Amino acid sequence: MAEFTSGERRNELPSERETEVAGGLADAVRDLVDATVRSEIDLDEQESIRAEIEALTARLRKEQLPASYGAAFGYASRRHHWGNAVVGQRNPIAPPVRVHRDSGRVWAEFVLGAAYEGPPGFVHGGVSALILDQMLGEAAASAGHPGMTGSLSLRYRYPTPLGPLRAEAEVTGVEGIKTHAVGRILVEQDDGGWRTNVEAQAVFILPRWAREKLAEREATGDAAPNPFEQG
Amino acid sequence: MAEFTSGERRNELPSERETEVAGGLADAVRDLVDATVRSEIDLDEQESIRAEIEALTARLRKEQLPASYGAAFGYASRRHHWGNAVVGQRNPIAPPVRVHRDSGRVWAEFVLGAAYEGPPGFVHGGVSALILDQMLGEAAASAGHPGMTGSLSLRYRYPTPLGPLRAEAEVTGVEGIKTHAVGRILVEQDDGGWRTNVEAQAVFILPRWAREKLAEREATGDAAPNPFEQG
Repeated sequence: MAEFTSGERRNELPSERETEVAGGLADAVRDLVDATVRSEIDLDEQESIRAEIEALTARLRKEQLPASYGAAFGYASRRHHWGNAVVGQRNPIAPPVRVHRDSGRVWAEFVLGAAYEGPPGFVHGGVSALILDQMLGEAAASAGHPGMTGSLSLRYRYPTPLGPLRAEAEVTGVEGIKTHAVGRILVEQDDGGWRTNVEAQAVFILPRWAREKLAEREATGDAAPNPFEQG
Repeated sequence: MAEFTSGERRNELPSERETEVAGGLADAVRDLVDATVRSEIDLDEQESIRAEIEALTARLRKEQLPASYGAAFGYASRRHHWGNAVVGQRNPIAPPVRVHRDSGRVWAEFVLGAAYEGPPGFVHGGVSALILDQMLGEAAASAGHPGMTGSLSLRYRYPTPLGPLRAEAEVTGVEGIKTHAVGRILVEQDDGGWRTNVEAQAVFILPRWAREKLAEREATGDAAPNPFEQG
């Protein structure tokens, strides 16, 4: 994929209206995704809707980034994560998970519908892994130790039903360039308590090229944010 | 979510035309998802497109499944996996990965675009986990030992660029209700060779309720497929 090189916008923050409009468009596409999985309308009508969707896609593509969203805006931009597959407000594949940070801990509540299914009626085991990878990475970043996933292990204690869920994560230790984190997906029970359905542990590593980028940033006194900063 | 109970269609296979039309609609929505992440058109035009998408969603919802696709068609149906988040032809979130089976081994080649991004320009580590969970599960199922993920461990050896990728998996052992599988995501190198970027190992477990369903199926001589059969 082509690399986006327009330096002038690398640090630009989205305006309030852009956040609202682009987020609203992505929300509408999320809803369309759910309707596409579940629709039972007749096939002629499906074909007619398909043609209209293709026309809308062509209108959206009249001006577009030459690459993925993050690649276009790069590590130095506060908006690169807008395209992220879990938290990206601009990405209709992302639920999106909105991460809260509270004294070294991160947590989120979100709803997973028909598009996130694995076994009938249950969240895909890999979707739980996807969300936990992001949450544990957010915990590492918010503790000041961002990195890329080096390893990730999941233990599935119970099948997780589609519907409202909670995820949490926190850092358990730091050794040089390695940050250890744990987390879990919880399901509310009939008695109002929360049960841990999936447990995760991960190690995040700050790779050499990212350390070099950070060093360069420090050396030049650039006001650009941390290359791995989330949100 | 409501359970779909219409017994008459539990084993129905989709017609050729339904496969083509519903698959084509999902393909069009996949392309719209990519355009939504990357679009740079002006905000008024984005708002106008959003309104048209909302109208199309309403048309798709005129008749719809009361639950997720798999929950609606259930374990006894050969079409329940059409909604699956990785391989589901009806699910715009799924790339979709088309799995090939060859003497105990499964493999797939697919392209991940802007919607699957984590770090700028790279596949989200959790998306690699999502795809590998499915691939290792397919290996277990195709070896005659289907199950739900009990544990999954991933080792990330190199960041995986967005673009064309390959995944493979195979079963390494079976102990009673536990099936062990391993797999990997590979990236083609400039010299034409393939490098393993992400490695996975997993244990799949056939839970009691699924064993009971299978036993019931055998006892009644029901021609319904295996509750976990893929594809």
